[in-house]
Formats: sequence, structure tokens, C-alpha cells
Amino acid sequence: MHILIIGAAGMIGRKLTQRLAADGRLGHATVDQLTLADVIAPDTPTRFGGTVNTIAIDLAQPGAATSLVAARPDVIFHLAAIVSGEAEANFDKGYRINLDGTRFLLEAIRQQGLQTPYRPRLVFTSSIAVFGAPFPDRIDDEFFSTPLTSYGTQKAIDELLLSDYTRKGFLDGIAIRLPTICVRPGKPNKAASGFFSNILREPLSGQEAVLPVSTDVRHWFASPRAAIGFLTHAGTLDLARLGNRRCLSMPGLSATVGEEIEALRRIAGESAVRLIRHEPDQTIIDIVAGWPRNFDTRRAVALGFKADADFDQIIRIHIDDELGGKAGAGA
Amino acid sequence: MHILIIGAAGMIGRKLTQRLAADGRLGHATVDQLTLADVIAPDTPTRFGGTVNTIAIDLAQPGAATSLVAARPDVIFHLAAIVSGEAEANFDKGYRINLDGTRFLLEAIRQQGLQTPYRPRLVFTSSIAVFGAPFPDRIDDEFFSTPLTSYGTQKAIDELLLSDYTRKGFLDGIAIRLPTICVRPGKPNKAASGFFSNILREPLSGQEAVLPVSTDVRHWFASPRAAIGFLTHAGTLDLARLGNRRCLSMPGLSATVGEEIEALRRIAGESAVRLIRHEPDQTIIDIVAGWPRNFDTRRAVALGFKADADFDQIIRIHIDDELGGKAGAGA
Repeated sequence: MHILIIGAAGMIGRKLTQRLAADGRLGHATVDQLTLADVIAPDTPTRFGGTVNTIAIDLAQPGAATSLVAARPDVIFHLAAIVSGEAEANFDKGYRINLDGTRFLLEAIRQQGLQTPYRPRLVFTSSIAVFGAPFPDRIDDEFFSTPLTSYGTQKAIDELLLSDYTRKGFLDGIAIRLPTICVRPGKPNKAASGFFSNILREPLSGQEAVLPVSTDVRHWFASPRAAIGFLTHAGTLDLARLGNRRCLSMPGLSATVGEEIEALRRIAGESAVRLIRHEPDQTIIDIVAGWPRNFDTRRAVALGFKADADFDQIIRIHIDDELGGKAGAGA
Repeated sequence: MHILIIGAAGMIGRKLTQRLAADGRLGHATVDQLTLADVIAPDTPTRFGGTVNTIAIDLAQPGAATSLVAARPDVIFHLAAIVSGEAEANFDKGYRINLDGTRFLLEAIRQQGLQTPYRPRLVFTSSIAVFGAPFPDRIDDEFFSTPLTSYGTQKAIDELLLSDYTRKGFLDGIAIRLPTICVRPGKPNKAASGFFSNILREPLSGQEAVLPVSTDVRHWFASPRAAIGFLTHAGTLDLARLGNRRCLSMPGLSATVGEEIEALRRIAGESAVRLIRHEPDQTIIDIVAGWPRNFDTRRAVALGFKADADFDQIIRIHIDDELGGKAGAGA
């Protein structure tokens, strides 16, 4: 099996690459070729016996998508996007990359198939940003998309295109809407959602972190390991079971900031919790108030997608996968 | 006020032009200029005192949208589209006209505004084809879009784009999803939905008509006069009341084929009803089974959009507006 990952240099792309390289298979199929593409050339995975090609390419450039699908990969993971803040600040760039880039990819696949039959699996990472407030307490599988960002608009359009290209038989697509990833590894960043990870990751390494909202704020989470599980399951599941409705909110864990902190206390102790400094920030409070808090994802659950059990598990996954099994404070 | 109608040569476009020309105003504003565009040059309305420009133009050609908005019309009605059957048969043409054409228009408006401030009202005719079966008995204002045609996909994407361009302040947009127009004037055509109108229009003129489905089939209707009412109301309503949710299913009349026929009997008598020949057609039965039957349009109703009262009214509107007040059979 030949797998193409577009957006392979990002956090999720690197973890997916590592997982596929380490397993050497996707479901029952042996992976003998990995093509890893991103705007900067992705790293080559170390533990992989097959062929690896790494490519620096901008999907939004004419011809880029055509060159990526020319080798007819069996499964394509399309993770590439510019993030919400950048798409909001740069209207043209957001549409060029997040809409046109995806459309070029779909169209390149179709054109391959018009030459000789070709119908690859396409797994696309969409976002809960396709939803816009006001929300019901739990967003169900039939709630409408009224995004309040250009990023969410672009993802919602990509979902519609993927569904239509699938319905017409040009590819076998699925769009999965990832929850907010937590604990996100790396350094604190300026994303408005960054604090959800910062208040765990930093204290676990003995560092201070700032909490800009109150502890009763509720949000929707998945660990990086759960996210990779969603992707590999989406890459192997019989998609005929989805019928024509190919876009799914993934099962996450709905939890409050207070529940995050209690889990941190149980696992890393009071000294870790004391590293969280509460500094209310009205700008972030207002942004977060417009975000989804909870979902009813019964379709995805029935199809075998699995959420994290609780925040204790989410923290332990971070300690196992990023900290070599040891928290740095309070232990 | 300068009004631009794109798609002015179609059935709805011609009726909207006649209405605006006859009234000489839209809401409280005097209409002093009409620009009428379509792929073939629209007719010039007779009863209008202001300036009329008619233009033959293909919105999907580069530069076409820019030239249309260069004169900075105050209100734009965008009715142009290729129909569902053609968009399904010709994938590239459907996307070129129904998606790219609309996007060019939105972008041309934005580019005008980037030069000097410009924020026109844009009224866009979307379609209930944005919804795909299976449906609830009544589709409410928050039901999701899972179109089962490329046409419906293109309209759903246009809705998302219009909403985002509105949210960003580039224009003041509203998308209205029209019910099936009935009684559609003109000759019987090959559209799968044609029989809903044929079984009334033809007998009212003393002609036979074929009914390919059973009389218990339920569907969602608006008269041409109601549709023009939706458009003019959308052109004058304070759209700030819609917030960021700019796409609305219009209130229609949910009725069965049997109810259509009973109204025909009341108005035109048994001799008219006898002109309907029941010839079941499994292809049409299957297509129609996938169509919406009823909606809960409480948002549109609260905003002042008005449905037809019953099928008797729908038939009388046809007799008044198309037959000079006299039915040709059974009277």
C-alpha cells in the first residue's frame, strides 16, 4: 500500500507518520511506500522498512496536486491547512490554501480517474469550526454549519466538495472533525485555545502557566493519540457504511477547565496545580464563549471511533508519549 | 436606486423585472436604474420610466462579474444558475457556473469595496436541493446540508461564501431557498418536478397532462407571485436582524398531489380533472421520493416572508397572471 500524507510536517502529520512507520501497516494492509508532503520537506521516519519520499510543495500552486497524485497513492491523508487565526487575518491566503488547495486535490484525483480507473481513499481533517454559536448544549450529527470564521467556512466547503466527489464515484472520502487537541506538545503559542494545553503541559514540566478563563469553562478535547486513532480508523473503515453522509464530528471528551485541573492534581499533585496562575483575559474569555462545548457523536461512535476516557488518561498519554513516562513536578 | 438582476431572462428574473418596473420602487426607494444581465440579453421592460441596460454576459467568464459591479449597483439579485439536471450531467459546467460564477461575483464586489467603500445588498436564490434525504417530516431552520446533487452542493457552497463575505463586511447578503415554483408558466418540460405544474397548467388550458406519481406524494410549493414577494422582501428587509445566519428556507405550502387535484376540481371543475392521465413512472417516483416534503420555516415567517395560503390561491394566481383571469376548461 502506498500512502500519501499532505501536511506531514505538522504535529498531527508527524505523529501519523511515526505511527504508520512503526506499525508498517494500515489495518490489514502492509505499507510499503510513504509519500510525505508539506510546504517544508517533512522529516523521514526512522523506523520504516519501505520506501519514503519527502516533498516540499504548496498544494495551492497549479500542478502541485496533479504531481502528488500522479503516483496513484491508495490512501491520501489530507491534513494541510493554514490555521484559523491566519485565515481570518489573510482572507486571500486562507481561501487559496484551505479552499483552492483542497479543490485542486479533489480535481487532480478525478482527472487521474478519467484517464484510467482510480478511486483512492481520502481522509480529510475538518474542524468543529464549521459550527458557529449559538449552539444547543450538545451539537448532534444533523446540526447545521454556520461557521463564524473564514477557516470554518473553508472547511465546511471542503466537506461539501469531498461529499460530492465521493457521491460521483471519483474518490472514497471521509471528513473527520477533530476536537481540540490536548495536551498539545511543544511550546506555548498564541492560539486562543493554547491555554487548555498550557495549564497541563507546563506544570508537568515544572513550568508556570497562565489560565485566562474561569474554571467552569467547558470544551471538547481529544489527545494526540486519540486523534491518530481517528485517522487510522478513517483510513481502514468500510466507508460504504456512511452512505452519502461522509462528514463526522469525532468523539471527544467534554470537560471543564476545573476537571482538567483536578486530573492534574491527582496525577502530578498540588505542587503542579500551584504553577497555574489565574489571570483573566477578557479577549480570550469572549472568543472561547463562542466555541462548542459538547457534542452528541453517536454516528462516529457507532462506526467505531473512540474518544479518550477521561482527563487522567489524556494527561497520562502526554506523560508517556512526550515526557518519557515521567512528570517533572510534584511527582 | 440602481438594481442589478443577474439571470434576468429566466422565468423568475422576468417576473421580478416586471414587478420592479411596474412599481418603480423597491420598498421606500425609487428605482431609477435597472441593469438586466443574462447569457442572452434580457428583454427591456415596457412600463418603466428609468434607465435600463440589458447585457448578454456569462458570469463565469473572467472579468464578467467585475464589469457588472463596476457601476456599483445598490441592490443585486443573483438568480443565475444552470439547473439541477444539467449540473448533474455536466460536472465541470455546473461547478464553473454555479460555484465559480457566484464566487467571481462576491469577489468582484469585495474588490470594488477595497478601492472605495461599497457594501451592496445581495439577494441570492438558493434551493431546497441543499438538503438530502433522509429527512425529518419537517426540515427546520437548523437542519444540516447534505445535498445529493452537484447542483445542491454548489448552492450550499454559495450560501457559505455569501455568509462569510457578509460577516467580513464586504456585502450585505441573504440567501433564500425557494420552494418548487407552481404553477410554473410555459410549456411542459423534462424536469422531474414538471408534473406538479403540468397537472394544473395544462387542464386549465384544456390540455391533457400526465401524472407519473401517486396522489399521496407530498411536496413544497410557492406560486411565482409568492417567489417575487420573497425576493422583494429580501431586497428591503433589515438584514442585521438575521445576524450571521443569512441563509433561509422560504415558507412554502406543503401539499399532496391529491390536494392539488382537489383545488383544481373546486376551481375548474370535474372536466379539468378528467384531463389528468395517471401513468406511473418508476424513475420519477424514485427521484421524487428523495425530495423534501415539508419545512418548519419559523425564522423566515418571523422575518415577514409570506407563503401562499392554499392551492386554491396558487391556482387563482396562475389564472390571474397567466390566463388573463379565465381558465380554459371546465369553467
